Amino acid sequence: MKGMKGVESMESVESMKQVKRIGIAGFGVVGRGLARTLVTKKDVLEKRAGGYRIVAIIDSRGGIYSDDGVDVFEAIRIKERDGKLPEGLRVEDILDRIDVLFECTPTNVDTGEPGFSHIKLALENGVDVITSNKGPLVVGFRELMKVAEKSGARLMYEATVGGAMPIIKLVKNELAGNEVLSIKGILNGTCNYILSRMEQEKMPYSQILSEAQELGIAEADPTYDVEGIDAAAKLVILANSLLGSDATFSDVERTGISSITPEAFEIAAMKGYTIRLIAEATRDVLRVSPRLVPFHSPLCIYGTLNAALIQTDLAGEVVVMGRGAGSSETASAMLSDFVELSRCGSYPLK
Amino acid sequence: MKGMKGVESMESVESMKQVKRIGIAGFGVVGRGLARTLVTKKDVLEKRAGGYRIVAIIDSRGGIYSDDGVDVFEAIRIKERDGKLPEGLRVEDILDRIDVLFECTPTNVDTGEPGFSHIKLALENGVDVITSNKGPLVVGFRELMKVAEKSGARLMYEATVGGAMPIIKLVKNELAGNEVLSIKGILNGTCNYILSRMEQEKMPYSQILSEAQELGIAEADPTYDVEGIDAAAKLVILANSLLGSDATFSDVERTGISSITPEAFEIAAMKGYTIRLIAEATRDVLRVSPRLVPFHSPLCIYGTLNAALIQTDLAGEVVVMGRGAGSSETASAMLSDFVELSRCGSYPLK
Repeated sequence: MKGMKGVESMESVESMKQVKRIGIAGFGVVGRGLARTLVTKKDVLEKRAGGYRIVAIIDSRGGIYSDDGVDVFEAIRIKERDGKLPEGLRVEDILDRIDVLFECTPTNVDTGEPGFSHIKLALENGVDVITSNKGPLVVGFRELMKVAEKSGARLMYEATVGGAMPIIKLVKNELAGNEVLSIKGILNGTCNYILSRMEQEKMPYSQILSEAQELGIAEADPTYDVEGIDAAAKLVILANSLLGSDATFSDVERTGISSITPEAFEIAAMKGYTIRLIAEATRDVLRVSPRLVPFHSPLCIYGTLNAALIQTDLAGEVVVMGRGAGSSETASAMLSDFVELSRCGSYPLK
Repeated sequence: MKGMKGVESMESVESMKQVKRIGIAGFGVVGRGLARTLVTKKDVLEKRAGGYRIVAIIDSRGGIYSDDGVDVFEAIRIKERDGKLPEGLRVEDILDRIDVLFECTPTNVDTGEPGFSHIKLALENGVDVITSNKGPLVVGFRELMKVAEKSGARLMYEATVGGAMPIIKLVKNELAGNEVLSIKGILNGTCNYILSRMEQEKMPYSQILSEAQELGIAEADPTYDVEGIDAAAKLVILANSLLGSDATFSDVERTGISSITPEAFEIAAMKGYTIRLIAEATRDVLRVSPRLVPFHSPLCIYGTLNAALIQTDLAGEVVVMGRGAGSSETASAMLSDFVELSRCGSYPLK
C-alpha cells in the first residue's frame, strides 16, 4: 500500500518504521514541562522526529509504566497532589523497555548522582539519552562518551548549558569546519540579574541579593550561583564538548560576585565599562570571574539572560543569547536534541 | 578487510562510500574564498562531510574541469591575472559530472539570474546545490523547492542570509519543535555601520556615507544597501524558509535610511533609544524600516555586524549575531551546509 501512495519524504518513511518508546527520569519542574510538551506538541514533533510514546516516568521514589503509553496529565496530577509517583519502580527496571531516556533529575556537580548512574546504565543497555543534568557531564564526560561509543547508544546534552540559548548544536552544526578558538559566556542568569541591577540602581550586593531571593531568582542558599559554581560546571561541559578538552570542575579558576561593590561599577562606568561574571574557555584556561565588559559589547546584557561569544577561525565572532532557565526553555533544548537524534543519529564530530 | 579493523564510526563508513565531486559556479571573492577553504581545510572537513574533490570551476566567461580534481591555486592565479578563466565551459556542461554545485554567482534580486538557471538545472539533474546567492531564492523560492522535491536533490542556502550569522539551521535544528512567531533582524551591515556612526558622532547621513564609500563598506551606488533592498531580499528568504510564507520581494514594505537626521538620533536618545534599520517578518507583515531600538536591546549593535531576534513559543526570544559579510564568513556558512547535507541529507522540516 505504501508504495502506491507514490513518493514519500525520507522523514515520513523513517517515522513509520519505528515508534520510539520514551522514558523520563526526574519528574520535577523540568521533567513535567518536558512531558507536557511531548504531549501537546506531538503532531509537530512527530513530523520531525518520527513516532513516539511515553511509556515510563520515574521520580526519586517510584514511577509509572505502561506499554501503551502513560497518561501524562494523570501522572502530573498525582505528582502535584502527593509530591511523588507510586513507589517502587526504578530507572533500571525500564531500560529494556525504552529506546530513549530523557534524564531530568537534579544536578549534583560533586557526585553527578543520581543522573550519572541513570545515564551510564541506559547507554550500556543501548538506550539513547537526552539530558538536562549538568552533574553527570561535569563528573564524567569522557567516561560517559566512551560508554556510548562502545554500545552505539547516543548521549545528547544541549539542555545542560544555557537553557534555550543554542550553543552545543550551534557550534557543531552551524560552525562545522570552524576551529573554535575560545568561548566567553554569561552562563548564570542569577548573577547577571544581580550585577545588572547593581549597575543600574547603584545598590549594594547584599540588598539586591535579598530582593532576588524574594523574587525567586536567587536560592535561599545562593552559593551555587553567586560563587560561580553553576557557571563553572557549564564551562567544563562546553570545553569538553566544543574545545576537545578533558576537563573537570577542579580545572576551573573561579571567583564569585559577592565582593563586588557599587563603587566598582562607578569606576568602571567612567571608562565605558560595566561588570559581568564571565566564564571563559580556551584550550589553556578555564576561568569564571567578574570582568570588565564594554557597554557596547554583545556580552553587556541585562537581567537573567545567558549569552556566549564564540571566537572561530572562519566565521570570526559569533554571539548567541537566550533564556538560561525555565521549564519550556529546557524542554525546547531537549526536544531539539530529540529531533537531531532522530534525523541525523547524533551530534557531528567537533 | 574493513570488517577486520573492527568498529568504524558511521561517519568514517559514510566517507568511504563515495568521494563527492564538487563544482563551483561563480569565481569572484566568494567563490575563490570557498575554493581556497575547501583545499586548506580538507582534512577537517572530510572527517565531517566525507571525501570530496573539486572537479570544476566556472565563472561568467568559461571555466576549468578535471576529473582528477582541478588545481585550485592555479585557477585562482589565472583568474586574478586574466580576470577570467579559460573561455567556453558552462555550468550545463558539467552537471552530469558533479554531485554538489556550490553556486556563488552575483545576486540579482530582479531576475535571479544567472544563479536561478544554474540552480534549477542542477536540481533537475539530481545535483545538490549549496548557494550564497539571494537572487534565485527571492525570485523563485517555492519553484526551486518543488524542483528539488521532484528530483530528490537538495537545495541549501545558509549563506544567503547574514553571512556567518547562523540563522537558517539555527532555527531548523536548535529550535526544532518551536513555532517561530516573528523574526526581527539587522540584516544589512552597511546600513548598520552608517547608523552606528551617525549615533556616535552626531554627523549627517551624507558625510558618513561618503566615508563608508571610501572605506569600501558602502558601494559607489549605495542604493541596494541604503534603500533596504538587500535587507528586504534576505527577509523574503527568512519568511519563506522559517515562517512557511510564500512571499516575493514586492510583498515587503520598505523604507531606507537616507532621510534620517542627526536630530532624530538626539531626540531618540533622550528617551533611551537609538535608530536601526530593522527587517521584521511575521506571518502577516514583511517590513524593512528604520525603527527605535532601546539602548539595552540586543538589537542595539554597532558596526557592520548582523543580528536577529527570533521570537518562539517554547524558547522565548533567542538572539544571534555575527559578521554579515566576508569571504571566509560566507565560506563558513556554505561549508556548514555541506556538512549538514552529508550527515543528515538536508535541512529538517520547519
